[in-house]
Formats: sequence, structure tokens, C-alpha cells
Amino acid sequence: MRTLGVVVSIDGARDPAASLQPLLDLVSAEMAGVNRIILDKAVSDIELIPTLAHHLIDSGGKRLRPMLTIAAAKLSGYTGQGHVRLAAAVEFMHTATLLHDDVVDESDVRRGKASARRLWGNQASVLVGDFLLGQAFRMMVDVGSLSALRILSNAAAVIAEGEVMQLSAAKNMGTTEDEYLAIINAKTAALFSAAAEVGPAIASRPADEQAALRSYGRNLGVAFQLVDDALDYAGDSARLGKSVGDDFREGKITLPVILCYRRGNDTERDFWQRTLSGGDIRDGDLEHAISLMRRHKAIEATLERARHYGAIASDALAIFPESAPRSALAEAVAFCIARAH
Amino acid sequence: MRTLGVVVSIDGARDPAASLQPLLDLVSAEMAGVNRIILDKAVSDIELIPTLAHHLIDSGGKRLRPMLTIAAAKLSGYTGQGHVRLAAAVEFMHTATLLHDDVVDESDVRRGKASARRLWGNQASVLVGDFLLGQAFRMMVDVGSLSALRILSNAAAVIAEGEVMQLSAAKNMGTTEDEYLAIINAKTAALFSAAAEVGPAIASRPADEQAALRSYGRNLGVAFQLVDDALDYAGDSARLGKSVGDDFREGKITLPVILCYRRGNDTERDFWQRTLSGGDIRDGDLEHAISLMRRHKAIEATLERARHYGAIASDALAIFPESAPRSALAEAVAFCIARAH
Repeated sequence: MRTLGVVVSIDGARDPAASLQPLLDLVSAEMAGVNRIILDKAVSDIELIPTLAHHLIDSGGKRLRPMLTIAAAKLSGYTGQGHVRLAAAVEFMHTATLLHDDVVDESDVRRGKASARRLWGNQASVLVGDFLLGQAFRMMVDVGSLSALRILSNAAAVIAEGEVMQLSAAKNMGTTEDEYLAIINAKTAALFSAAAEVGPAIASRPADEQAALRSYGRNLGVAFQLVDDALDYAGDSARLGKSVGDDFREGKITLPVILCYRRGNDTERDFWQRTLSGGDIRDGDLEHAISLMRRHKAIEATLERARHYGAIASDALAIFPESAPRSALAEAVAFCIARAH
Repeated sequence: MRTLGVVVSIDGARDPAASLQPLLDLVSAEMAGVNRIILDKAVSDIELIPTLAHHLIDSGGKRLRPMLTIAAAKLSGYTGQGHVRLAAAVEFMHTATLLHDDVVDESDVRRGKASARRLWGNQASVLVGDFLLGQAFRMMVDVGSLSALRILSNAAAVIAEGEVMQLSAAKNMGTTEDEYLAIINAKTAALFSAAAEVGPAIASRPADEQAALRSYGRNLGVAFQLVDDALDYAGDSARLGKSVGDDFREGKITLPVILCYRRGNDTERDFWQRTLSGGDIRDGDLEHAISLMRRHKAIEATLERARHYGAIASDALAIFPESAPRSALAEAVAFCIARAH
């Protein structure tokens, strides 16, 4: 599977300097604290809870969202300790979402390992997700910032709304790019946005700075999801910890598919209808899907869209004076986009 | 099915005066506000959300939990408007739990109607539950009381923990009465307790009054659940909106079963093992289960336990001076217990 994906090469699009390292260096001390809190709050006398929670917690996610919270708080000159607990709460909200997502998508693989729902069943995944969400709110309450609570509780409702939106649009090849953007704005970008916005919120920074980091997070989140969508048809399975073709096999309608469907002819549309709407996937269908992506330059177009949102994210930071947090956040955008290459 | 259940008759246990009417009268103006907020906050552009939410919201639950919040706030002399929104949030937390419960229990019936998960699938039930929980937290944040937020976010985590505990104990006939009490303390009584405690909390009443209402709610919740367990083997299906034997068919190990199993002989224990642990339920098994309940007076004993917790709940109110809210709350306990007769 390693060489199955589309090989994308666009002159000038590659940014070899893009690295997550400046962000990792910036937040490393606080992230040690975040990781301690995560371990501490995944504890319960009910053995199934830490077992299942650790399966995901230890599975090597990048923890990008809590890093955004720490970096945004630093950019905002925050000097307290609340950002560490808020960052842990953000990661718990994300973990809870992953647990419920896997149930909804009937996914058997997550981050290259068997998914929790496959190992412990849907029931445990639903309930441990609920527990982690409850713990997340407890941590936020402990921090005591009503504005951070408002931002994150809004995000919780919007994320769920986005997931329902996606469920309602599932299998519908008529989904437009606009509709898809509304879905990923809610289900993915809302948490990136909230994660970044709580930084200036707990530092009591003015509204324009909160708006700037909200916009940074939202656009980064959209770009991140679009790159993820592209990688599902073009990536390197071993490196990503996910298989090329997962979205295809699960019948997910993502931007590369939407573009390919619209740019295709009637025969090609019949193919997408049969496989993604109809769920009738046969040997060779994934390879054919990838060849259609290649024909219509759907991956390149998706990455082009991602760069557009990434540019908005970077420009949103421009109101802040030059600083280490600002450049680390800007380079994180470049990194998220460059991982497609 | 109407006459299938155990007929329980214990001299002096029946309390014909016990009525929910004083509580209903006390809170009727505020509950109109609660109901308006519930309708308002179940709204979404994503059609599936209000459709599914209304299926449960309109299904005629008693709304006992939000009534406790309103009455406890009145008992605490609260004069603001926050209790109405907190009460709506409590009902949303409860509704979210029901949606997830039905998924976990694979229930096809809820309040005498087809369950949401049967009509719209597990996926939608999980996600709309998440949405309602998010909305609940939004409402709590709007009220702005950190102490109420602390109480309710604790409850959210504890409820989920209790559900996982129940899942871990499922099919285990070795579950003790103590273990079962720990489960229902978490999964049922924690929300009753939090619903009552937020009343004095938003009224900034002293710790002993908060503790009193917390204890009232917790013990009422335990009594309520035990009566529910008894009714599942002894109730009147048409009146309850649930079928006698639902718990039996779902293999749930409740207090009547725990008592019957412990009081039974080896042949009887084999029967419980086959049906509830093994899931091998044949024609006539429910009738046999009920006859064993009768032989060992398991329903009477369960109701006796319920009366014990009900008495603790009533006595917890004794530190408050006599008032309409106090007697309405006390009579609600008597009502919850009397509904078994």
C-alpha cells in the first residue's frame, strides 16, 4: 500500500523549512504538565475507563490542539497556570470526539491500531467518551474562567452539530463544496478555533486579539482537515498510521471526492454513486478512484484549497507583533500543509 | 401483560395521600419557562437534531429532575432567574443520558414508544446526545454560577462512570447489593443530587443547606431507581409506558434479581445464570422469574430498601423550617415510593 497513493508535485508548493519544531520547543515545558494532567484525569476505579482511555492517549497523537492553547496563551502574555488545564481539557474533548466518531463511522482502525470500539465495543466507547467529556468540563470549571468555559462549551455543541450534519449528508453525492466546508468548520475547525481562542480569553486580551486567534484556529482547522482528506487518497500508510483508502472504504464524502465527482463524466459519476452512495466496493475500486483523482487533479485542487485557508490563518496572526509564539504558530500552519508532500 | 406482575400488598406501606401535586403546583410557573427554554435550545438547522430531540422531549417524561432544581431554589429563597435555565440544563443532561443509554442497552422501547436509536439509528442517538450535553453546558455557562457548573460537571463525569461500572458488571450474577448501590448512586442518584444541590448553590446558601439538598437528592434518586427496578417485575405496563420484563429481557442485573439470586437454591441460581448471564431466554422464563420473585419476596424487600432511602431523603429536609417548598419536596419522596402500589 505504501506506493498506492497519488504522487503530487506542484512546483513551489513545497516548503521544506516548514516544521512543527518551533511550536514543540515553545510549549514543551507546559506540555509536560498537560500530559501529567491527562494521565491524572483518566484515572477511575472502574478499570475499563483508564484502560480504554490510555489506548487512545498513549497512541501517539500529535496533541496539536492543546499545543495551540499553550502557544496562544503565550502569545497573549498569559502568566498564570490555567492554560495548562484548559489545554488538557481540549485534548480530552478531542479524545471523546474520536471515541464517538469511531462508533459512528464503524471504524476498526485509529492511528494505526485497532480502534477502541473494535477492542472494547461500541458501548464502552460511547460511555468512556462521555466520561472524558465530563472530566474536560470539570477541568475547565477548575480553571474558573467563564469566558473560556463559554468558548469551549460552544465548541462542544457545534462539534456535535457538525457530526450530525455529516451523518445527514452521508452517502449523498450531491453534497456541495460549501456544504462540506460547513461540516468541517463545525466538526473539526470549531475545536482548533476554541483551542486557540481560550489563550487570549484567559489572559483577558481585547476582543480583536481573541477574534484573531479564533480565526487563526478556524482556518488552520479547515486546512488541516482538507490535507487529511487529500492524504487519505495520496498518503503513505506507514507514515500516517492510517491506510490509504480508509475514507473510501467507509463511504465518506470528502472534498477530493466532491471535486472528482463534479469534474467527472456520467460513467465516472455512476462509479462514485455505486461505491460511496451504494456501498458496493469491489476489488480494484480504490485504484480506480485514485486514477480518477489523478485525472481530475482532485488532490492538487484540495491541497490548493488547504493552502488558501492556511494563508488566512497565517494572516490572522499579523496583528500581533513579531515574537517566538507568533512565528511558531505561523510555521505550524506551513507544517500542516507541508505534511501532504 | 397488564396482570402479569407480582401483586405487592404490605399493610401500612401504602400512602394514598402521597401526591406529586404540591410539587407540580409549586413549580408550575417556572416549569413553563423551563419548557420554553427546552424547545428553544433543541433547535438546529440540522433537521435531524430537533426531530430526534423532540421525540424524547415530547414523550411525556415527568421532568422530575428540573422540578427538583426549581423547588430547591425556592426552598433556598432564590430570587433570580438562573434556576430556570439550570433546570433546563439538568433535563438536557438527562435526555442526553437516555439517548446514550438506549444505545448501550440496545433498547427498542423508551417511555412506551420506539426508542430514538431504533427509529434513527445508534449513530444519530450518540451524536444528538452529545449535542444536547453541549447545549446543557452552554446554558449553565450562561447562568454564570461557577458553583453550579462545578456541581453539574461533576455529575456528568460521575454519571458516565456509573454507566461504565454497570457495563462492567453486566451479566455478572456475583454483583453484590453494595456494588449495585454504588452503580445506581452514580448513574441515577448523582443527577438527582446535583439537580437539588444547584438550588442552594445559586442562592449562595451555606454549606450545610447545600449538603442537605445534595443528600435529599441522592437518597431520593436511589429510592426512585429501586422502585423502578421493582416495577419492572411488578408493574402495570399500560400505566408505566414500559413493559414488565424489559430489564429481564435486556439481561439487567437489578436489586430484585440480586436478592432473588442470593435467597435462591442452586436450581434457581442456574436459572438466573442461564437467562441473565447467558442471555438464553425462553418462553415462560419471565413468568418463572416473577414466581421466584414472589417466593423470595424480592419485590417487597426492594421496596423496603427504597423506603429506607426515602426516609433518609425526607429527614435530610428537616434542617429547613416548615414551608411549602419543603413539604412539596417531602411529599415527592412519598409519591416516588407510592407509585409502586
